[in-house]
Amino acid sequence: MNYASKLKVESSQQSLLDQYQRIREESVQICSKIQVEDYAAQPMPDVSPPKWHLGHTTWFFEEMLLSKFYPNYSRFNQQFHHLFNSYYKVLGAHTVQGDRGNLSRPTVAQILEYRNHVDLGMMRLFNEQLLSAEAKSLVEIGLHHEQQHQELLYMDIKYILGSNLLDTRYSFQDVPPAFQPQRGWTNFSEGLYQIGHVGEGFAYDNEKPLHQSYCYPFSISKTLVTNGEFLSFIEDEGYAKPEFWLSQGWDWVSQNKIQQPLYWSIRNGLWYEYSLYGSIPLDMNRPLVHISYFEANAFANWKNERLPTEQELEIYLNHSQLKNSQIVLNELHPNNAGKSFGEVWCWTSSQYSAYPRFKPYEGVLKEYNGKFMCNQFVLKGGCVVTPSSHYRHSYRNFYQAHQRWHFSGIRLAKDIL
Amino acid sequence: MNYASKLKVESSQQSLLDQYQRIREESVQICSKIQVEDYAAQPMPDVSPPKWHLGHTTWFFEEMLLSKFYPNYSRFNQQFHHLFNSYYKVLGAHTVQGDRGNLSRPTVAQILEYRNHVDLGMMRLFNEQLLSAEAKSLVEIGLHHEQQHQELLYMDIKYILGSNLLDTRYSFQDVPPAFQPQRGWTNFSEGLYQIGHVGEGFAYDNEKPLHQSYCYPFSISKTLVTNGEFLSFIEDEGYAKPEFWLSQGWDWVSQNKIQQPLYWSIRNGLWYEYSLYGSIPLDMNRPLVHISYFEANAFANWKNERLPTEQELEIYLNHSQLKNSQIVLNELHPNNAGKSFGEVWCWTSSQYSAYPRFKPYEGVLKEYNGKFMCNQFVLKGGCVVTPSSHYRHSYRNFYQAHQRWHFSGIRLAKDIL
Amino acid sequence: MNYASKLKVESSQQSLLDQYQRIREESVQICSKIQVEDYAAQPMPDVSPPKWHLGHTTWFFEEMLLSKFYPNYSRFNQQFHHLFNSYYKVLGAHTVQGDRGNLSRPTVAQILEYRNHVDLGMMRLFNEQLLSAEAKSLVEIGLHHEQQHQELLYMDIKYILGSNLLDTRYSFQDVPPAFQPQRGWTNFSEGLYQIGHVGEGFAYDNEKPLHQSYCYPFSISKTLVTNGEFLSFIEDEGYAKPEFWLSQGWDWVSQNKIQQPLYWSIRNGLWYEYSLYGSIPLDMNRPLVHISYFEANAFANWKNERLPTEQELEIYLNHSQLKNSQIVLNELHPNNAGKSFGEVWCWTSSQYSAYPRFKPYEGVLKEYNGKFMCNQFVLKGGCVVTPSSHYRHSYRNFYQAHQRWHFSGIRLAKDIL
Amino acid sequence: MNYASKLKVESSQQSLLDQYQRIREESVQICSKIQVEDYAAQPMPDVSPPKWHLGHTTWFFEEMLLSKFYPNYSRFNQQFHHLFNSYYKVLGAHTVQGDRGNLSRPTVAQILEYRNHVDLGMMRLFNEQLLSAEAKSLVEIGLHHEQQHQELLYMDIKYILGSNLLDTRYSFQDVPPAFQPQRGWTNFSEGLYQIGHVGEGFAYDNEKPLHQSYCYPFSISKTLVTNGEFLSFIEDEGYAKPEFWLSQGWDWVSQNKIQQPLYWSIRNGLWYEYSLYGSIPLDMNRPLVHISYFEANAFANWKNERLPTEQELEIYLNHSQLKNSQIVLNELHPNNAGKSFGEVWCWTSSQYSAYPRFKPYEGVLKEYNGKFMCNQFVLKGGCVVTPSSHYRHSYRNFYQAHQRWHFSGIRLAKDIL
Repeated sequence: MNYASKLKVESSQQSLLDQYQRIREESVQICSKIQVEDYAAQPMPDVSPPKWHLGHTTWFFEEMLLSKFYPNYSRFNQQFHHLFNSYYKVLGAHTVQGDRGNLSRPTVAQILEYRNHVDLGMMRLFNEQLLSAEAKSLVEIGLHHEQQHQELLYMDIKYILGSNLLDTRYSFQDVPPAFQPQRGWTNFSEGLYQIGHVGEGFAYDNEKPLHQSYCYPFSISKTLVTNGEFLSFIEDEGYAKPEFWLSQGWDWVSQNKIQQPLYWSIRNGLWYEYSLYGSIPLDMNRPLVHISYFEANAFANWKNERLPTEQELEIYLNHSQLKNSQIVLNELHPNNAGKSFGEVWCWTSSQYSAYPRFKPYEGVLKEYNGKFMCNQFVLKGGCVVTPSSHYRHSYRNFYQAHQRWHFSGIRLAKDIL
Repeated sequence: MNYASKLKVESSQQSLLDQYQRIREESVQICSKIQVEDYAAQPMPDVSPPKWHLGHTTWFFEEMLLSKFYPNYSRFNQQFHHLFNSYYKVLGAHTVQGDRGNLSRPTVAQILEYRNHVDLGMMRLFNEQLLSAEAKSLVEIGLHHEQQHQELLYMDIKYILGSNLLDTRYSFQDVPPAFQPQRGWTNFSEGLYQIGHVGEGFAYDNEKPLHQSYCYPFSISKTLVTNGEFLSFIEDEGYAKPEFWLSQGWDWVSQNKIQQPLYWSIRNGLWYEYSLYGSIPLDMNRPLVHISYFEANAFANWKNERLPTEQELEIYLNHSQLKNSQIVLNELHPNNAGKSFGEVWCWTSSQYSAYPRFKPYEGVLKEYNGKFMCNQFVLKGGCVVTPSSHYRHSYRNFYQAHQRWHFSGIRLAKDIL
Repeated sequence: MNYASKLKVESSQQSLLDQYQRIREESVQICSKIQVEDYAAQPMPDVSPPKWHLGHTTWFFEEMLLSKFYPNYSRFNQQFHHLFNSYYKVLGAHTVQGDRGNLSRPTVAQILEYRNHVDLGMMRLFNEQLLSAEAKSLVEIGLHHEQQHQELLYMDIKYILGSNLLDTRYSFQDVPPAFQPQRGWTNFSEGLYQIGHVGEGFAYDNEKPLHQSYCYPFSISKTLVTNGEFLSFIEDEGYAKPEFWLSQGWDWVSQNKIQQPLYWSIRNGLWYEYSLYGSIPLDMNRPLVHISYFEANAFANWKNERLPTEQELEIYLNHSQLKNSQIVLNELHPNNAGKSFGEVWCWTSSQYSAYPRFKPYEGVLKEYNGKFMCNQFVLKGGCVVTPSSHYRHSYRNFYQAHQRWHFSGIRLAKDIL
Repeated sequence: MNYASKLKVESSQQSLLDQYQRIREESVQICSKIQVEDYAAQPMPDVSPPKWHLGHTTWFFEEMLLSKFYPNYSRFNQQFHHLFNSYYKVLGAHTVQGDRGNLSRPTVAQILEYRNHVDLGMMRLFNEQLLSAEAKSLVEIGLHHEQQHQELLYMDIKYILGSNLLDTRYSFQDVPPAFQPQRGWTNFSEGLYQIGHVGEGFAYDNEKPLHQSYCYPFSISKTLVTNGEFLSFIEDEGYAKPEFWLSQGWDWVSQNKIQQPLYWSIRNGLWYEYSLYGSIPLDMNRPLVHISYFEANAFANWKNERLPTEQELEIYLNHSQLKNSQIVLNELHPNNAGKSFGEVWCWTSSQYSAYPRFKPYEGVLKEYNGKFMCNQFVLKGGCVVTPSSHYRHSYRNFYQAHQRWHFSGIRLAKDIL
């Protein structure tokens, strides 16, 4: 390697190290506003205790980087491999997801110590080695993985505090105002469109390869469905009319007696929404959030419109000319409120499948994305708690049809005939 | 209406009546080989008692035709509306699917009487009226609906007899021989292909509209995966290697201790397969049947190939130049054995979704297909117990990923790079 | 053995044979009023299909008598040992109770053939051998066992027909009239009382040995609680007042939304009771029947009285001077109606435990009674479908606290202070 | 009230106040050795988070004393009434037991503040009023209630730490040595014995009234069953022999794959027992502990002996001449080890029922004991973590047959014939 290219490499390595430090620190910062007791709670199986997220994201670097590339690396604790493996079956047995909340130990302090231990190892790795392309790629994945868990931390903390009877909240700042939504539709013509990740930057395996897909003429709403619109659905007894619902959706509504979005409640005839700012009066102009695919689909049927496919929504997002980094972080970043997208992940009608000629990661990370391509729906567009540097229009988020503790909402589509 | 066109109408009405009589009779014939006790059993929730099928298909004509088009029609029994409604929620409450086996009454004799009552009504309707286009369309749907249930009858009877400890069988004839499978692949080039139902004949709403879809170059196997090939997967411990499985598939295998296809068993070191002819030694050349999507997907991964999309498989079927009616009815129709497709429904990697610009049936039948477009995978190609006149290449069968009591198998695909 | 005693033995053997034939025939007779389809239904796990009872009682004689005492006995079918073993774990694996309804085979005809095969074997055993004391004791137990199942047949048939939507009934005779209940209390003084089986006749192991038990002064009601009295409890919202209920009882009421006895229903403001004669208007003078221990206990608390202990109820029954054989068979034997006890099994406050110095049967039959001495409550007094020759005042019936498909009712007690 | 009797009253009130302060402080002390994260864990539904115990015992005084007797008492937090009510249904809805672990708030600090708030209120009550007999009785019950929860704290903390993968322990002191058990039997003759609480001191409603019970001659072992004896049962494959087990016990063993006592484990062929001192090698002389009633009953059957009735065990305890306060606190109080009883609660064969003429507490506390008299077995004798001042020979502890996270063991009995 000649001097110039070594410099360049080192400069890219230094930049990666900077990212590493910034992103790792951010996870700890997110949790700094909650109490020790909040770190360990798991009020439903989908939610993981915040301290588990802090441990698991650390385990990723220990398992994928330090134990492979750092000679004589000494693990912090032999049991952590079992405790903090999420779902990588080829690595052996691991704690069942729904049991994560049963573990009072390791304590938060021990997990922060674990983070320090691994971060120290990573610093040494960065400083003592010229990282291979494989290692750098793994660091990059590890950081995006950690950013995914930052979004999960917001979701899970909201659920933990929101399912508590006491009046709790994440932020004590003022709630940012909602903006008057901008009405209208954007039309797209028939043809072959490019779908998937373009260019050199980072993307997950499931966003590739870039490929063509044929679309019929369609139209996408310029605005997200608002609380006010969804309230009309409720007032029209939409939850009680089977003709709007998927079969499994109707079963879900009936068995769980679902009558409103996850965080809505009614007291003395007035509607409230639980937010990271605590319980606030329902604002009719604010985007609807925390609904299941079943509810999104029923609402679209009731409106006599439909949800977009993931291709359609990606075409719309690419068309918007907003850079990936301009997504809106409304709930927690008041100054950015009111932009045309980014506030909620939008459900698409596309079930999560492999793109044509999809190649999963090799080795352990083969389990990262591909094995979930069954019984999940794709969401696109990012949300208020998605880290900006983590977001891409080609990003494919996915959840099961009944899940709704993520920041999920609706952007409608319709055919042009 | 002038005389010539009336004649034509009447002739088409007569032809529909002939079909009605033939198809209705066939359902009773299928059940004629089992005992009264077999008509009422429901050894797992997915299976319906044969007598329930006989009642439900009759209810369809009573509910959709007679009660609407036959003046002063008198229902056979007021309770049957509740008992024999399968899942049409807009028609009101109905017996829960898993409870169908709890009902010892109505008896088989009463249900046959019910069939006669409704058939008599239908004869009168045919003879006394010139049926409207709507009525004829409903009769046509009702007959295809009944043929779907004929396939279900075979599936459910096989399960009922096969889950019994005693040595029971549906047919006492000799087992038809298996043919040496024909190896090779058929290649298809990149481009836009027509997908969906073509022409005037009958098709369900979910096969329409005919539309274009873009495909990359692909190749489809000329032969179905055989028992012998799948046995190699088992012998390589494929059921114990998580790297081949979907996440939900691995959970399914682990929780249910799945180790082989549904009807396989091993006795004294020899493999057997339960068939409609009873338990027979496993024939290595016979197509693999009764596997879940999870197993099909794991097998394809293990082979380093993949399942076709539903578009790819439909293109292959259309290319085959076999008419729809030439599908093979091997297990019960020995003379037709050994053809290249039709023996088993082939799992595709496509999750069941609406075609572009899909319009569901209107009214009650809106619930026929569209509300199941969630958490199901498409299968194509027909199977040995599919009625020939019911089959089309555009047919979209669908089941959940864990289900395997239908005649499901594998035809592999691969990319041409 | 001298001639006289041999004669005596043979006469006793002949008498046993007569009983055998009469009791075996009675089981078939009980089922003769239902349809083939009814023989196989199992609408809840506690209920066994009638054909299973016919098979299981036959298996008892095959397993306990013929396979041990009949040289070269040839079993009717090797699989029946597995199919018709109820719960004798030392004899190996058996069909799970809740799966009995899944078995369409053997057919009713095959089971009747099985009965004939075993009865023929038993006839030969009786005619060809002088039975040992052990064998005769086993025959005696087998016949009482069959009579227990005759009561179960009535219970299970009632449940099968009663859970059907169609208007079904067991008997088409007129409903026998109810009698005006006779009010009053019978007092008993403090002291040691004899409890358990007295004398030479047949009794189960759990009724022995005869022993002393100390009682404080108590009083027992001369009449059973009537439908009318229980209706007052309902009208006072007894089902909604936790202060009357056991902790597990309250959970049971809440989770199952229990609001009335098992077979009660209300239509157009009028109460009905499902009986073996079909649905009949609720008669306020008829004894309350088909309630759980939870309901019996709550009712007694509401009345500010209590349920008797099993000792107190046995003392009352012994005091009544009615012979064991005089119990009342009201529901099906109209001429005997209105006697002071025998119409319903009365819940006692005694949890089912071993009597002092209890010795269970030896061998396989050790599992007959003793292993159920946990989480069951004792009932005493017989009911309208208890075979007269099977009944004794010392009889200890037992069910779990939530069960109520047996003919269970209430006779109240109170302390004399 | 004259001066002398007022003095006496005040002196008794002062003594109660002293007890109050000592016992309330003890609960906090027990928890002082664990981490904040341990206070909130609930690894199985039966276990309550330690912080919940601290809150619930405080709620008892707020609800039963302060809100009734303290004029204008201001509750610490209106929601705590719902959060910390355990099971008093007449007081309204409360948190489901299995959900106690989902609540990250109130924090431990808040609960300790709550304790201070209520303790301050109680101090004022004591200092400002001459307490009525009712109030003093409620304080006394509240303190015994708190001592019950102190034992629960030890049980639950042991389970929380013991179900953690990491090497955790409650005490870091040395394990006290086990003593050689003293063999032999104590005989008792036939007759009427006094059962229940004698004299003036405190006892729960369920220990009264004192009454007579008739016993046949019996013998009780002078020693508790040891680990070594139970290991012989395991080595004889006692867990795999259905003939020793109750029916429900066999189901429990089979479904949960039970193969040893709760805290036993085997590593490299050596047995270990988890204790409050962490994992220690199994000592064959130490009393067996943490077994279910099912296991206790199966062991007794295997030994061809039996469990004592609760009457027999109480007679033995009364005979022992050890005062109530002399029970042994072995595991945590090493100096007292090796006494003849008190180390483990001994299962009796008696299902928990009302004594003759039992009168439950009136008002809310009616729910304290009586409503659990169903499907529970009585244990007697106290254990190593029972507070000495809480213990009485007449004490009736009770658990369900499958539970074993309490300090439960076996003392055998046999008949003298």
